[in-house]
Amino acid sequence: MSRYPAKVSLREVGPRDGLQNEAPVPTADKIALLDALGQTGVRRIEAVSFVHPRAIPQMADAEEVWAGAKRNADVAYSALVPNARGAERALAAGFTELEVVVSASDTHNRKNINRSTEESLDGIAELIGTVHGAGGTVEVIVSTSFGCPYEGEVATSRVVSVVDRAAAAGADRIAFGDTTGMGTPTRVTALVDAVRSRHAELPLLLHFHNTRGTALANVLAALQLGVTEFDASVGGLGGCPYAPGASGNLASEELVHMLEDMGIDTGVDLDALVDAARLAERIVGRELPSAVLRAGPRTRRAVLG
Amino acid sequence: MSRYPAKVSLREVGPRDGLQNEAPVPTADKIALLDALGQTGVRRIEAVSFVHPRAIPQMADAEEVWAGAKRNADVAYSALVPNARGAERALAAGFTELEVVVSASDTHNRKNINRSTEESLDGIAELIGTVHGAGGTVEVIVSTSFGCPYEGEVATSRVVSVVDRAAAAGADRIAFGDTTGMGTPTRVTALVDAVRSRHAELPLLLHFHNTRGTALANVLAALQLGVTEFDASVGGLGGCPYAPGASGNLASEELVHMLEDMGIDTGVDLDALVDAARLAERIVGRELPSAVLRAGPRTRRAVLG
Repeated sequence: MSRYPAKVSLREVGPRDGLQNEAPVPTADKIALLDALGQTGVRRIEAVSFVHPRAIPQMADAEEVWAGAKRNADVAYSALVPNARGAERALAAGFTELEVVVSASDTHNRKNINRSTEESLDGIAELIGTVHGAGGTVEVIVSTSFGCPYEGEVATSRVVSVVDRAAAAGADRIAFGDTTGMGTPTRVTALVDAVRSRHAELPLLLHFHNTRGTALANVLAALQLGVTEFDASVGGLGGCPYAPGASGNLASEELVHMLEDMGIDTGVDLDALVDAARLAERIVGRELPSAVLRAGPRTRRAVLG
Repeated sequence: MSRYPAKVSLREVGPRDGLQNEAPVPTADKIALLDALGQTGVRRIEAVSFVHPRAIPQMADAEEVWAGAKRNADVAYSALVPNARGAERALAAGFTELEVVVSASDTHNRKNINRSTEESLDGIAELIGTVHGAGGTVEVIVSTSFGCPYEGEVATSRVVSVVDRAAAAGADRIAFGDTTGMGTPTRVTALVDAVRSRHAELPLLLHFHNTRGTALANVLAALQLGVTEFDASVGGLGGCPYAPGASGNLASEELVHMLEDMGIDTGVDLDALVDAARLAERIVGRELPSAVLRAGPRTRRAVLG
C-alpha cells in the first residue's frame, strides 16, 4: 500500500507563472491573490519574477507586489529571474530562493531569449555562483522537458545533459517543465528514472501543464517513483501561449483534491484554495479551467428533490 | 517495461451517453455522428438507448437513428436498455449487445428509477435470461461505483455485492461507472482488485468522468492492473447532470492521445476522431471540453516567426 508517498509539497505558481501568462492586472490584485494563497496552508509560493518590464509588462511591479504582500512566515516564497540583473533585484528585495529557466530545446530557447541552450547554461553557472555567494539558492527549471512545440520530440538524453551541466554548476534543485503539455506517463517515468540514476540526491520538482488532459496522470506516474514536489497554479491560472484558448498550468485544486483523496497529505485547505481560485477568476475576469472549481470537490453533495 | 497492456479497446459512447445528456438534436445529426465515428477505427460504439420517449426525449428516435446509420461491419454496436420493453425493442432492431444500468447507491437508484438497487437487480436477472434466450449478451453497468452525489462514499464491498448478484445472474460483462467523477486512482485500484479476486474471468470495462480532472489518472491506475476496456465520449460530449457547466465523460481524443503516445494501441485514427469531435461541437452548438480538441495533439507544431 506504500506505493505512494505520504506527503507532497505543492508549490503554488499562480501569482507568477499564472499571472505572467494573463493580461496585466493591477498591483493590488496581485497582492490580494498572494495574501489569499498564503492562508491556504500551501507552504511554497512562486511570488513574482524580476524580468525586464518591456519584455514582460505583467511583472513590471514585482518590487511593489512583494513589498505590499502580507508574507506568511510559514511559507517559502520564491522568485523567477532571467539573468544576473534580475537576480540582483530579487536578492535586493529579500528573496533567497531564486529560479532560472533554460529550455532543453535549442529552438525554444533561441525563440524565447535569442541564445542557445548552451549559452544560457553558461550564464546560469555564473548566476548560481553569484546567488550562492549572497546566501541564496537557485532552482534550474528545464522547460520543454517532455517535448517542444517547435522541434517536437526532445530526447531524454538531451534533457539529462542539461541537468548534468546545471548540477555541475551547483543547482540546488532541478524542475522539469512540461511547457506545452506534451508529457505522458511513460515519458515522465523515463525522464525521472534517467535523471535519478545519475543525480540521486538532487531535489526534483515537476511542473505539468494540462494542455492535453494528462497532468494528473503524469503526477500519478511521478508519485509512483517517489517524486514529492509539484508545481500547480490556482484555478489553472495561466493559459497556453502556443494554443489560444487551451489550458496551461495544472490547477492547484485538481492536484490537492486528487492527492488528499488518495491519502497523500498536502497540508492545503481545499475550501480556502477554491476561494482563492474564485478570487483569481474575478481578478482576470474570465472563467478558469479548474475542474474542481467548476464541479466542487467530491465531498460536495447533490440536493435530492 | 510491460507494466501497461499492448492494446486497449475503447468504446465510443458519444452517440448515446453523450447525446442523451445534451439538449435534443435532429435525427439526421445523430446518424451523421454515428457514421463519422464508424470511420475512425474505433471498434465499439454505444449507438442508442431504447428508453421511454417521455423519460428521455433525446433518444425517442432510436429506431430511426439505427435504421439510418451506415453500419461499419468492423464495429460492434451496442444499445442501452432500461427494462424488458427496451430489450425487446433493441433485439427487434437487430442489436445483440445490450447494456443495463444499476446504481450501487440505493439513493441514486431510487432517485433515477424509483426502485431499490435490489429490485433493479431482480429485474436485471430476468432480463439477462430473456436476452440470452434471444442470443444476445448483457453488460451490467454499475453506476456510482466510485461515489454517489447523494450518499457520498459508496463502499467497495457494496459495489462488489452488486457485481456478485449480476455475475450470478449471468452478466456477460461488468462496467463500473464513475457517474459524477468521484473516482481517484487509489479507489480504482481498490475496486478493480476486489472484483478481480472474486470474478477473475468476468470481462471488466471502466467508464470514467473527468468532472474533477482525474479521468486519465484513473485510466492509468487501471491499465497498471491490466484493464483494457474503457468508455470515452467524442469531444467529451455529455455534461455532468449534477454540476451545471462541469465536464462529464472523458473525451475520447484525450484517451486515444495519451494511450497512443504511451505505445498502447487503440486502433483509432486520432485525426479522424478530432474531426468527429468538431462535428459533435457543430451538432450540439457549444464548445466541448476535450483538451486535445482545443490544443491539438502533441504532434502539432507551433509556427516559428
